[in-house]
Amino acid sequence: MTLNNLIGKAKEINKKTIAVAAAEDHEVIEAVVQAINHKLGNFLLYGDREKMLELLHSMGEEYVKHEDIKVIHCNSKEKSAELAVKAVHSQDADVLMKGNIQTSTLLKSVLNKEYGLRTGRVLSHTAVFEIPNYDRFIFVTDAGMNISPTLEQKVEILNNAVSVARSIGVETPKVAPLAAVETINPSMSASLEGAVLTQMNRRGQIKNCIVDGPLGLDNAVSLAAAKLKGIESEVAGMADILVVPSIEVGNILYKSLVYFAGAKVGAVISGAKVPIVVTSRADSAESKLYSLALAVCYSEK
Amino acid sequence: MTLNNLIGKAKEINKKTIAVAAAEDHEVIEAVVQAINHKLGNFLLYGDREKMLELLHSMGEEYVKHEDIKVIHCNSKEKSAELAVKAVHSQDADVLMKGNIQTSTLLKSVLNKEYGLRTGRVLSHTAVFEIPNYDRFIFVTDAGMNISPTLEQKVEILNNAVSVARSIGVETPKVAPLAAVETINPSMSASLEGAVLTQMNRRGQIKNCIVDGPLGLDNAVSLAAAKLKGIESEVAGMADILVVPSIEVGNILYKSLVYFAGAKVGAVISGAKVPIVVTSRADSAESKLYSLALAVCYSEK
Repeated sequence: MTLNNLIGKAKEINKKTIAVAAAEDHEVIEAVVQAINHKLGNFLLYGDREKMLELLHSMGEEYVKHEDIKVIHCNSKEKSAELAVKAVHSQDADVLMKGNIQTSTLLKSVLNKEYGLRTGRVLSHTAVFEIPNYDRFIFVTDAGMNISPTLEQKVEILNNAVSVARSIGVETPKVAPLAAVETINPSMSASLEGAVLTQMNRRGQIKNCIVDGPLGLDNAVSLAAAKLKGIESEVAGMADILVVPSIEVGNILYKSLVYFAGAKVGAVISGAKVPIVVTSRADSAESKLYSLALAVCYSEK
Repeated sequence: MTLNNLIGKAKEINKKTIAVAAAEDHEVIEAVVQAINHKLGNFLLYGDREKMLELLHSMGEEYVKHEDIKVIHCNSKEKSAELAVKAVHSQDADVLMKGNIQTSTLLKSVLNKEYGLRTGRVLSHTAVFEIPNYDRFIFVTDAGMNISPTLEQKVEILNNAVSVARSIGVETPKVAPLAAVETINPSMSASLEGAVLTQMNRRGQIKNCIVDGPLGLDNAVSLAAAKLKGIESEVAGMADILVVPSIEVGNILYKSLVYFAGAKVGAVISGAKVPIVVTSRADSAESKLYSLALAVCYSEK
């Protein structure tokens, strides 16, 4: 499976509708147009009408009155967030996408008690990587959402990642809670959490996956490294999902894969009623497209 | 500069002596023989005499009575650690190397008040990476020694890495304290520490380098990413030394570079009277050689 396959998979799904908050931004419109060209879905664009039309026009006359694009004027970014979220709430849209707006502003609407998209679950970030010379997807969570998750929150973060993996065909993902060591060290909380998550999985408190941790990154992804350490595990060397101990680990691992290992990546926020796509300006156009494809697949689960 | 260049640089230095504690191990002897072949130094091998000679013999008859190898029998691993450390203490050796012995057992001798190698400074791990398609060395600290360093300890960890970088020709290293964000976020201690370390450098409390943090990994190593975020900094995009916020970040970044990015690496422990080489079984033979070369250069500083 490659991320390009994922675009194909997303295309096969009945057309989904993506609501974009504050779409008046060159890079957002570029991603929208690219997604339209790949027939990934219909778009509801909320924001400054004039600017959005101008940007669409700059991409080509055909996008100004495209049957898959609807432009809705909003006087403020807050209003665009509210209306985009409401579109999802009323089931007029299946995916929410952040445009040129602070994530916190968008999340305020997402978490609104009247019209928001709360489920009671933790919102978390799951990234899926296609790494050169690597034969399968590697999921990393949470690299971008929860700053200091508690154990309870880590369980939900793990569950969210499992649901993302299952939505794109990894039926029973192997999950490695990462630490700096694969043995339990009482002074390293990540190693304790790894052990606890593993046992919660054995007791049926975490389902639809196989958890075994703590593992080092080496023995999580390399069978040779796992063998060298004599680790007996269904997960070691074969991990699909890497649960990182802190946002610093997740963020720096994410960037190391992109900047040093030449990996491709898509990502989605799960835990709300629908997938949320939060791309950043630094993401490549390709990566934004992968994130949209992932969200479309995930919304179908 | 490549790690192979570093071997050349180490060769040019007047022959150093490396004391190895518990050398009775196939992989350790292999590394010793490789270093001998590259004329990196003389070796004092402490451990089980018979086993060491047998292993040397298995590598070739010429290594059994090699002029650059001296074999000293010890009845226990503890004794081999003690004698190896004493050899350094009495200036018969310039570098200490861990053989088939627990790191904690070796460090007990290193920290011995009578004959040990204490300097009062924090011992820390500095790794130097040669990354494909990357034009300079990247140093990462601390990926393997200090579990939860305090701010004071981070300052010393940083200073140790600066001294390692300077010993191999990076005269005024650019130092990036890493965090998940490049802005200060009061709820992310790594970002606060980054700011504090930067200001300590401006006030002259951290010398011989330029510190600027917090930085994300992307804007620390990529000029394009730094520009995109509009970061004005002498370090951003040009960092030589990455100071990581926790051992988990260091360890996982280290392994990500080796396993996913195909990087080559050497590492050394600094902060004692001489460099200490602590390789692990999972390190490649090449990596062990690089670590020895790095330690030889560093012992010359």
